Amino acid sequence: MGVNSNRAEDFSSQDTTLRITTESVMPGMEIHKVCLPPKKTTLQKLKQRLGEIFFPDDPLHRFKNRTWCKKLLLGLQFLFPIFQWGPEYSLKLLRSDIISGLTIASLAIPQGISYAKLANLPPIVGLYSSFVPPLIYSILGSSRHLGVGPVSIASLVMGSMLSETVSPHDEPILYLKLAFTATFFAGLFQASLGFLRLGFVIDFLSKATLVGFMAGAAVIVSLQQLKGLLGIVHFTTKMQFIPVISSVFKHRDEWSWQTIVVGFSFLVFLLTSRHISMKRPKLFWVSAAAPLTSVILSTLLVFCLKLKSHKISVIGYLPKGLNPPSANMLSFSGPDLALAIKTGIVTGILSLTEGIAVGRTFAALKNYQVDGNKEMMAIGLMNMAGSCSSCYVTTGSFSRSAVNYNAGAQTAVSNIIMSTAVLVTLLFLMPLFYYTPNVILGAIIITAVIGLIDYQAAYRLWKVDKLDFLACACSFFGVLFISVPLGLGIAVVVSVFKILLHVTRPNTLIMGNIRGTNTYQCLGRYKEASRVPSFLILAIESPIYFANSTYLQERILRWIREEEDWIKANNEGTLKCVILDMTAVTAIDTSGIDLVRELRKMLEKRSFQLVLANPVGSVMEKLHQSKTLDSFGLNGIYLTVGEAVADISALWKSQP
Amino acid sequence: MGVNSNRAEDFSSQDTTLRITTESVMPGMEIHKVCLPPKKTTLQKLKQRLGEIFFPDDPLHRFKNRTWCKKLLLGLQFLFPIFQWGPEYSLKLLRSDIISGLTIASLAIPQGISYAKLANLPPIVGLYSSFVPPLIYSILGSSRHLGVGPVSIASLVMGSMLSETVSPHDEPILYLKLAFTATFFAGLFQASLGFLRLGFVIDFLSKATLVGFMAGAAVIVSLQQLKGLLGIVHFTTKMQFIPVISSVFKHRDEWSWQTIVVGFSFLVFLLTSRHISMKRPKLFWVSAAAPLTSVILSTLLVFCLKLKSHKISVIGYLPKGLNPPSANMLSFSGPDLALAIKTGIVTGILSLTEGIAVGRTFAALKNYQVDGNKEMMAIGLMNMAGSCSSCYVTTGSFSRSAVNYNAGAQTAVSNIIMSTAVLVTLLFLMPLFYYTPNVILGAIIITAVIGLIDYQAAYRLWKVDKLDFLACACSFFGVLFISVPLGLGIAVVVSVFKILLHVTRPNTLIMGNIRGTNTYQCLGRYKEASRVPSFLILAIESPIYFANSTYLQERILRWIREEEDWIKANNEGTLKCVILDMTAVTAIDTSGIDLVRELRKMLEKRSFQLVLANPVGSVMEKLHQSKTLDSFGLNGIYLTVGEAVADISALWKSQP
Repeated sequence: MGVNSNRAEDFSSQDTTLRITTESVMPGMEIHKVCLPPKKTTLQKLKQRLGEIFFPDDPLHRFKNRTWCKKLLLGLQFLFPIFQWGPEYSLKLLRSDIISGLTIASLAIPQGISYAKLANLPPIVGLYSSFVPPLIYSILGSSRHLGVGPVSIASLVMGSMLSETVSPHDEPILYLKLAFTATFFAGLFQASLGFLRLGFVIDFLSKATLVGFMAGAAVIVSLQQLKGLLGIVHFTTKMQFIPVISSVFKHRDEWSWQTIVVGFSFLVFLLTSRHISMKRPKLFWVSAAAPLTSVILSTLLVFCLKLKSHKISVIGYLPKGLNPPSANMLSFSGPDLALAIKTGIVTGILSLTEGIAVGRTFAALKNYQVDGNKEMMAIGLMNMAGSCSSCYVTTGSFSRSAVNYNAGAQTAVSNIIMSTAVLVTLLFLMPLFYYTPNVILGAIIITAVIGLIDYQAAYRLWKVDKLDFLACACSFFGVLFISVPLGLGIAVVVSVFKILLHVTRPNTLIMGNIRGTNTYQCLGRYKEASRVPSFLILAIESPIYFANSTYLQERILRWIREEEDWIKANNEGTLKCVILDMTAVTAIDTSGIDLVRELRKMLEKRSFQLVLANPVGSVMEKLHQSKTLDSFGLNGIYLTVGEAVADISALWKSQP
Repeated sequence: MGVNSNRAEDFSSQDTTLRITTESVMPGMEIHKVCLPPKKTTLQKLKQRLGEIFFPDDPLHRFKNRTWCKKLLLGLQFLFPIFQWGPEYSLKLLRSDIISGLTIASLAIPQGISYAKLANLPPIVGLYSSFVPPLIYSILGSSRHLGVGPVSIASLVMGSMLSETVSPHDEPILYLKLAFTATFFAGLFQASLGFLRLGFVIDFLSKATLVGFMAGAAVIVSLQQLKGLLGIVHFTTKMQFIPVISSVFKHRDEWSWQTIVVGFSFLVFLLTSRHISMKRPKLFWVSAAAPLTSVILSTLLVFCLKLKSHKISVIGYLPKGLNPPSANMLSFSGPDLALAIKTGIVTGILSLTEGIAVGRTFAALKNYQVDGNKEMMAIGLMNMAGSCSSCYVTTGSFSRSAVNYNAGAQTAVSNIIMSTAVLVTLLFLMPLFYYTPNVILGAIIITAVIGLIDYQAAYRLWKVDKLDFLACACSFFGVLFISVPLGLGIAVVVSVFKILLHVTRPNTLIMGNIRGTNTYQCLGRYKEASRVPSFLILAIESPIYFANSTYLQERILRWIREEEDWIKANNEGTLKCVILDMTAVTAIDTSGIDLVRELRKMLEKRSFQLVLANPVGSVMEKLHQSKTLDSFGLNGIYLTVGEAVADISALWKSQP
């Protein structure tokens, strides 16, 4: 510490307007010293760093300078957003919410049944999952437009991951237990991420990755529906493209033309209604009502033509009644615990990503903020509660939220209305689904997931950022040909690799002076920029880390070699000084410090001067702490490239 | 493309000295337009990028503008550095090389025997490994001071990884086969890294990680020697700290005082000689000769007191003769192939890291360059050849190279001399080692590895960079308590995490104008910097990626909120314009583009203007390709913060 503070005094004892050069490139230029950042203890730094990591939005700022009473109210509103909008709730809002709630209910019921089948669960579980979780979300959630319920991606992933180990047909009870346990862990994981403010974990699923993943999952989900649409009985349990396609053609003899006709007619009907709603958003109700209409029509059709019904498989008997408690079915031991935890984490991340993205999208449209960490806790708690009441993983669904938004939902009350409608269905209307053909569920699912294939977004990625497109393609093909979690894993690795690649091989640019200014810019890019004789000015465009210090050393030495060759070829004066513009070197580690130190030694041996321009606070601090600063001295560090060039040129003139 | 080129014309049709503002903060300031980088096709960009990734040192530059004959010679010299220094080799150099070669031979023989035991291999394999690989390295290697042979870390890792699955005592032939196969894969991996120019892979083992890893490995290796030093017969086969220590105390009854006395006397002797050489580098021969002296003295001691020898275990019979061929022992099938490959890759990386680091260290001292990729190929080929001639993993050893350097080695001929000395030993002197006590090997190993514990380096890490110290501590404790490859893996993950953390939570700084200049600097750091009324100037200190775009949005909105609070508290004018200084935003991806676009929309709604200052080439290009640039227009992007402030202020004055 003694040495440190001595050194700091050395620096601070210099007057700020230390040296005014009279004769220089830019006459009369004032030379500023480069400051160390204000002193902080390790603890202060740690506190600030942790604050930035976990509380970037400063969530407590609204509690500042308030009375205790107000603080309590704000706290309550913070934990339960219902207290925020509840007191201002009016009949007018209720009317909007009832309309939108009933609209999404008409979508939620067939979707619930379909998605449950996608997860290899009994159809009734899908309805249960549209009842409890939306109620809980309406109390805890901060989005006003999120339509909560089961979603296709999470259902697919849960189904594919669990059925790899446990067969839903041979061991239905064990499978159900695993599904509820996985849901519990998904909720626990989601709530913990929110509680520990680790929400940034889901940021690692970049939009590019998700575009590819969604498209891949949509293709897989659609292919799975070929079983129902073609009426195949013996279908592969695998999910990947190749086994499914080969299974479809292997069992050609099982194709049933009745099923195919019914299925494809309703598929055309559903796709047309979807198309209409997309062209005219005002007709949103066409696509919203279409699934329920299809269910009713197809059920009536099968019922009336009962004789032929043995050719078309139907849902069959569904038990009446509310969600039975399922806390006793959660099992936290046994050989399949690891599977349940893994499935929980993967579905948890995926459903969280979808929920938060959907919430943010509609919040941005209505210009309000959704707090990511709070949403995570809401979704997590809703899933934990769901797992104890016979629900599987739920989240904010894109299709449901879009319909909700378009139907004019104003608050989370629309979710309550939807729950009530599901409640009525559960209590009284279950027998009506006896004759609903399975093929109609396949058509509903295909219509829902086909919107996830966003080829325009993929094209935009290709146009703007090839590496983003690569991540997108990796996740698409990974999901399609390998497996859902592995495909996703590969895509995340590709995305992270992209960041690391940029760090490992940073740009270095040769800079020149823009005539008549003190600005220095890239020579290749700006025609107005010209070389400054005797100087080589390099900008390093990345933090200097262990991962790039070797590369940077080689690259800088090559720049010097090339500059010398250029000077020789052009018969200019000799190279005397190398200036590194450190503006973009926003961090440095010990390997980086070693690089600076070594480079200085190497250049000194070849009698070049090494100068750093504009090192940022943290870099300056580390140069100081490692005593590298001492070796640079007064003419080694400048605030700007311009001042460095001016001062050093003046020095050369005064000491010829 | 049509749209693109149209747009580019829009930009290029603006004159470079477009708008000269007369009335502004800095009167008479010239406003420059921000250029797009020169147009390149995707293929050109890919070529340039791949060039930077794989050929940063431009290895072909020396072939440019040469005759074919010269090119051939240069190519030969490039592949076999012996052709570079061979023609200039003189008798004077030979004298130096003979002295240093014999000196390292005296170290290499006991070290070879000891390290082979560390890898659970027959002692003779250690001597074989000091014969063939150095010969091959002397032809292919580009370092003049590297002393080649088996090293402690790689031996330890190979021993610990292989013996977890196969017992070296119960199945010695299988164990030997696995060791040779692993060596082959290590060589193949190393040579491929070099050939594919993927040398940067080893950069991910940062110096910080290595400091911790080496220290941890040194402790583990030393603890393993307690078996020999205390004369314990039944010792654990585990490597970790706790089982070894508990095994030492469990078998207290097996401790043999004769062994302990001999062992610790020689340990003290060796440590003292090491201390002397460290204090006075001129006396390097003291520590260099000490191991062989200890071996001779202890062998004589045991031989003379033969009666007591049953209390002290000895090496026993060693076969005479040269390396037998072992290509027939390589097996590329069977259940242990995966283990051999894994062990090969881990030992390959570790030995490569040590070899390259040592080579670079001594090259820097003598001011010549070591080409990393070429070294990798040399070390890899030497190990592949070694695996076919009964050698296990070898590399440049730090202790041997240091002795070699201090003994005045001039070229790789010293390795040839050492090989010759080992050859003589193998042919004639093997019976002499019959009575060499095992305890002395333990003492030699401890003396060799104790120098790897660099607590001063660890202290420096702590002082300069806490996160580097964390990586160091993780690898130390990981190796000590978990396992060698896992400890290393954890440390690499921590290092990479450090990079990602910086990207995920980048600094944002609020900037002010340094009085009397056009420079803008951090307000907190520079007292000379002052706020510019009506402007909020933020510098973003990181590329904008998917991993930080959400954070940056929240953080920027918080800066604006805090600025408004500050303005309210200080009764200043209103905030009108937010300038983002993009100098340090050295890359952007599609999520980053979305952030910029969304931020602009959000600020527009609150009637703030968003301005970007100095976007770098690649960012500018992507803003253009994604058509975001169009929405910014003329007053949205400026070359410097100074010009933005000047121009926008002037605009406000002219349009009040």
